[in-house]
Amino acid sequence: MPLPSDLISHQVRLAARPVGLPTDDVWRYTDEPVGAPDEGGLVVRVEALSLDPAMRGWMNEGKSYIAPVGIGDVMRAGAVGRVLASRHPGFAEGDWVAGALGVQTVARLDARTLASAGMHRIDPSLGTPAQWLNVLGMPGMTAYFGLKEVGQPRAGETLVVSGAAGAVGQTVGQLGRILGLRVVGIAGGEAKCRFVVDELGFDACVDYKGGALKEDLRAHCPQGIDIYFDNVGGDVLDTVLTRLARKARVVICGAISQYNATSAVAGPKNYLSLLVNRARMEGMVVFDYADRYGEAVAELAGYLKDGRLRSREDVVRGSVRDFPRTLLKLFSGENLGKLVLELDGAAA
Amino acid sequence: MPLPSDLISHQVRLAARPVGLPTDDVWRYTDEPVGAPDEGGLVVRVEALSLDPAMRGWMNEGKSYIAPVGIGDVMRAGAVGRVLASRHPGFAEGDWVAGALGVQTVARLDARTLASAGMHRIDPSLGTPAQWLNVLGMPGMTAYFGLKEVGQPRAGETLVVSGAAGAVGQTVGQLGRILGLRVVGIAGGEAKCRFVVDELGFDACVDYKGGALKEDLRAHCPQGIDIYFDNVGGDVLDTVLTRLARKARVVICGAISQYNATSAVAGPKNYLSLLVNRARMEGMVVFDYADRYGEAVAELAGYLKDGRLRSREDVVRGSVRDFPRTLLKLFSGENLGKLVLELDGAAA
Repeated sequence: MPLPSDLISHQVRLAARPVGLPTDDVWRYTDEPVGAPDEGGLVVRVEALSLDPAMRGWMNEGKSYIAPVGIGDVMRAGAVGRVLASRHPGFAEGDWVAGALGVQTVARLDARTLASAGMHRIDPSLGTPAQWLNVLGMPGMTAYFGLKEVGQPRAGETLVVSGAAGAVGQTVGQLGRILGLRVVGIAGGEAKCRFVVDELGFDACVDYKGGALKEDLRAHCPQGIDIYFDNVGGDVLDTVLTRLARKARVVICGAISQYNATSAVAGPKNYLSLLVNRARMEGMVVFDYADRYGEAVAELAGYLKDGRLRSREDVVRGSVRDFPRTLLKLFSGENLGKLVLELDGAAA
Repeated sequence: MPLPSDLISHQVRLAARPVGLPTDDVWRYTDEPVGAPDEGGLVVRVEALSLDPAMRGWMNEGKSYIAPVGIGDVMRAGAVGRVLASRHPGFAEGDWVAGALGVQTVARLDARTLASAGMHRIDPSLGTPAQWLNVLGMPGMTAYFGLKEVGQPRAGETLVVSGAAGAVGQTVGQLGRILGLRVVGIAGGEAKCRFVVDELGFDACVDYKGGALKEDLRAHCPQGIDIYFDNVGGDVLDTVLTRLARKARVVICGAISQYNATSAVAGPKNYLSLLVNRARMEGMVVFDYADRYGEAVAELAGYLKDGRLRSREDVVRGSVRDFPRTLLKLFSGENLGKLVLELDGAAA
């Protein structure tokens, strides 16, 4: 079926670099006609957008593990979509795909951007679009490789994960349980902690807002902490460092407490615990494992299917214009599970 | 030959826990008669004492990688000595030995303290007493296992070592060169930097007091830093973190800039460079490798003999009463090479 000639993409672009939390004035909205794909290219309708803490980093200038979003560019976002038109031999009209489609209703990709966006077909029988942005997507991949490759878990060890109710944390903890670890979450507030224990099956969860993080960790990790999977940085990281076990591994996956910092990031002042405990702190970036995503998807989809792994998404339905305020939910600590924006008018 | 019945040991004991730099009033001097050894024990005359940054940590209360020195106890110190009397089958009168003999002129060890002090015979043909406290002793062991086991060096990589003119740093850098690395030292002052390049053969040395550490590291490490061997912590560590190469290894061996801190230790605020660069920061404690010291001594003694490795000691001659003020040289930044106190009246 040919593309309608009046097909328009509604887009959210970065207008300015934010200072602190991204305010309304850092965004600009555009509507652009979408032409047919070039040879080797695709046109994809965006069905669901992934909202990630890392997005805040992409909005900053300066070198990171990925180039910043340029001023005037469509905001980068992982997404699931369906192919509207293809001139690429690997994709057919109607295929479900995932990749960095951006915050827009329709994405037109040429052969080059298609590769850099990491576009790939997904199997809708393994999970919903939201699950493909969660357990079967980047958060799941991050959890899987961060825990298995960097964390080097051994059955019987104690794993602590911060951001336990978040997208990455929920899978880290559940995977830890499957691998035979004792798993203690850290989350903000009683509701999240209940969710983490009652619905996700962690052994325990500590409320970092409770004012007794150190004592609570001591109580729940009497043998010390063998693996700490850190999504938050800041004071929580500092406190966990005081409870490391000998030869502990600290996986640095993110530092959401620092992403909107307008003053200098606070360094972990207890880092000499690494020396005392012969412990390791190591950063990980999920893209390094791209050639092994298939292995992780197969394993995690199996756990989803047999019920050992639960997937929890916080799905907001709306238009791309709802992206800016939805993104802020990540930083206010109010969302539970993977935050997804499903676009109205998108066929589920 | 029986021990003289009036043999006295002159001792330096810890009288109080220091706040900041150890002042005179934290020490107490005692003279005690030394009896004959018990069955399974030794009496050893101390010939040379090792003065180490780590000593400052042993004087603090609280858990570390080793128990603190108790108030009233003889100050712990690594030393080389000669056996005056032995009732242990592994040692004979006249043997040269090394271990934690403490800051005293004569040490009497029973079977139990002999083991916990790590007493072992040394071969005086491989090095002088001062060298047995340096390249062939704890600093050399620390350099060897820290670089090889934690640093995981590969020929062609760039190694940066702080405290480059110090006991551990000098061997780390020279060993790095032997292993085919590009080696850049960090030291305080022009004289130390000249020594590090001209006498130790590092490729370059940066003066951290020069006010341009970041720029100097950029100039000398254009491909980034693959291994950073950290003896100092603080601002130097923070600056080095900004220049890490992908998959870098940071060996946390010490933090001399922090040992006398009376306020909170400063955390490395650039630790998220570990994430961006998929890098690792790992602590090491030399005692973990005790069962492999023989391997390291053999290799390092070989390098000493064939001239590829130079050993530089800052030898002070005096009595045990000179220990307190000699120790302060470590923290004022004035000493070059391994600081050793050779005891007057000791037979060389």
